[in-house]
Formats: sequence, C-alpha cells, structure tokens
Amino acid sequence: MEAKEILKEHIAKTASLTDEQFDYFYSHFKLLTYKKGQTLVTEGDKVDCEYFVLSGCLKAFFINDDIKMYILQFAMPTWWTSDYNALYSNARATINIDCITDVEVLCLSSADREKLCDEIHQVEHFFRWRTNRGYVASQKRLLSFMNNDAKKRYEELLALYPQLYNLVPKHLIAAYLGISRETLSRLYSAH
Amino acid sequence: MEAKEILKEHIAKTASLTDEQFDYFYSHFKLLTYKKGQTLVTEGDKVDCEYFVLSGCLKAFFINDDIKMYILQFAMPTWWTSDYNALYSNARATINIDCITDVEVLCLSSADREKLCDEIHQVEHFFRWRTNRGYVASQKRLLSFMNNDAKKRYEELLALYPQLYNLVPKHLIAAYLGISRETLSRLYSAH
Repeated sequence: MEAKEILKEHIAKTASLTDEQFDYFYSHFKLLTYKKGQTLVTEGDKVDCEYFVLSGCLKAFFINDDIKMYILQFAMPTWWTSDYNALYSNARATINIDCITDVEVLCLSSADREKLCDEIHQVEHFFRWRTNRGYVASQKRLLSFMNNDAKKRYEELLALYPQLYNLVPKHLIAAYLGISRETLSRLYSAH
Repeated sequence: MEAKEILKEHIAKTASLTDEQFDYFYSHFKLLTYKKGQTLVTEGDKVDCEYFVLSGCLKAFFINDDIKMYILQFAMPTWWTSDYNALYSNARATINIDCITDVEVLCLSSADREKLCDEIHQVEHFFRWRTNRGYVASQKRLLSFMNNDAKKRYEELLALYPQLYNLVPKHLIAAYLGISRETLSRLYSAH
C-alpha cells in the first residue's frame, strides 16, 4: 500500500475527512526513509516533528548515568512516535529515537499539526483520540511496572505484541522490560 | 471562588470560549460533594464520568493480589481524574478513586464530553491539550519509575507537589512511590 493510503486508512478509523480535506492534510507530511541504526531524535536536541511509521521498527529510549539503557516505547507500522514531552512543551529532547530496522515514516511538524487542528475540526478530533489512547497505554504500562514482576510483564508484552519477538533483538526486549538479558533468557526458555 | 469561575479560569488557559459557549459547556457539569473516605470509582464498576476537582484531594489506586496498595495519581484542585482506561474504552474500572479529604468536584459524563467536543471546536481543543499534558506527565512518571531509586523519586515528588506533604498521610505517599513506610521515614528524616 502507498504511504498516503496507509495514513488515510489509519485516520479514517477515528475521524471523518472528505477526500479534499485529507489531500490537504496529507500535503503537510514529509516522507522520510532511514537506515537501520540511524537516529531521528537525539537527547538535548530541539524536537519539531512527530513521526507516523509506515514500515520498520523504531525504539524510543534513554541512557542513564550508569550507561544503562531503558526503552520507553517500540514504534511499529501505524504507530506514532516522538519525544512528546519536548514536542508539547517546546523543550529539548530528554530521550533518543533510532531505527531498529530500515524505516519509512511520514513526518509532521508541530506547527503544521496545530495549524491543521485549528483549520479542520475532525483533525483535532483525530489527534485528541490518538493521545487519549496513548495516555491509556502509558497508564497501563505504569501500573504494570508498579505491580507486576518481570515474568508477568514479559507475558503481557508477548500477548500485546507477538510480532515484536521476530523484529526486535532480545537485549532490546530486556531493556523494555527493565530486566537483564539473563533473566529474559530464563523467561524465554520457560515459555 | 465559585465552581463556575474556577472551571472558567482553568479552561481559558487553553481554549477560547465565548461567555455563551462557556455557559452552555458548564450546564453539562454536575456539582458533587463527597466526605473524606467516600468512593467515586470502584474496581469492577462501569465508569461514565470524569471529575474536575474544585477542593480537597483524591487518590486513584489499585490493590493487588497481595493486598498491597499502589497509588497511580493524586488529584488536587483543578486536576481531572477518572479511570480513563475504562472511560475511553467503555470497559469496567480496573482502579479505585476515593477521597483523602472532603472533596468538591464537577462531574462530566463521557457522552456529554463527546457531544460538547463535537459541537464546539474549542472544547475539543481544550480536551486534546488536557490529555496531551496528562500523557507527558504519565511518560515522565514511567521514566522515573524505570530509572530512579526511591530517594530520587521522593525528591521529584517533593519538588513537583510540595503541597502534597501537608495534605496526604505519609503511608499514601509511600504507596505512590512504591516503597515501604519505613523507607519513606528514612528519606523524610534525611531530607
């Protein structure tokens, strides 16, 4: 499917745009391709854009003072990713986003998102529900982190995103779960 | 300040409504008062409303299988609270919300929120940004949970919400931080 069709189908699940409105909306996106390992957002940078994933897989992560990596989010096709803290508050990035595989994304600037939300009510409707879902997913992950042990978190991840296990190296899954590779291996073989 | 004025001032920070629009918007809210200890949302219930806090303090929490309490959120004046997972997906509540003090809230039903968002573009704009901010706060808390030890999380909480320490019993602050009361006492006296 073409980039435009993928986005159109994605938006249509939440908002009703006429073909004309969608064409106008789409004209504000830039198609970008990245190679495995390339970086879209770097800690300390300004963040002007958010990304709609067309193909491939990215990770949003940060490295703490002990050089330990924590993965905040994987982003797969039809997911949106950015450093939203930086994007929404005009601050510098506090996380990094890079490509686990070759990646194709559609990029939308923050200025254009606000302009489009202002011009087309249904675009604002779409972005409200996009963030509502993100908020709920984030709260669920927090609850899971507070309450569940590594085994339960591993099983939740497996149930939610079975495709991750073919796409993503095991050490990155460990970094998402906040456990060591050895612990993950034990869980993996026990499964 | 009156309930209506508090909400009006809160909305005006994000969205531009005419007086007429705001009066119409406000007519959909119900003013409710609760006594300390009363419950607004109970695990397993249907959730139809969200709450804008006028006075007092609430906690959103869940109790796990080992009868350990985890606090997801405190809600203070001008904050919004509900079980958004249940509210947005029409599911049963997975958390509880009750009153730490006597509380006054304005209650808005989910059906009315969607109707108002549809009828008044600026109301949709308000709720989009309300959730954007909630999403960012939730991501920050997740990062903090993944990366920081109890001491750092305690200091973050103290910096963010100094007023909490006069309002909220210490064992609830421990439940928010995910630590024991003994550990909190050590942090508290060391501060």
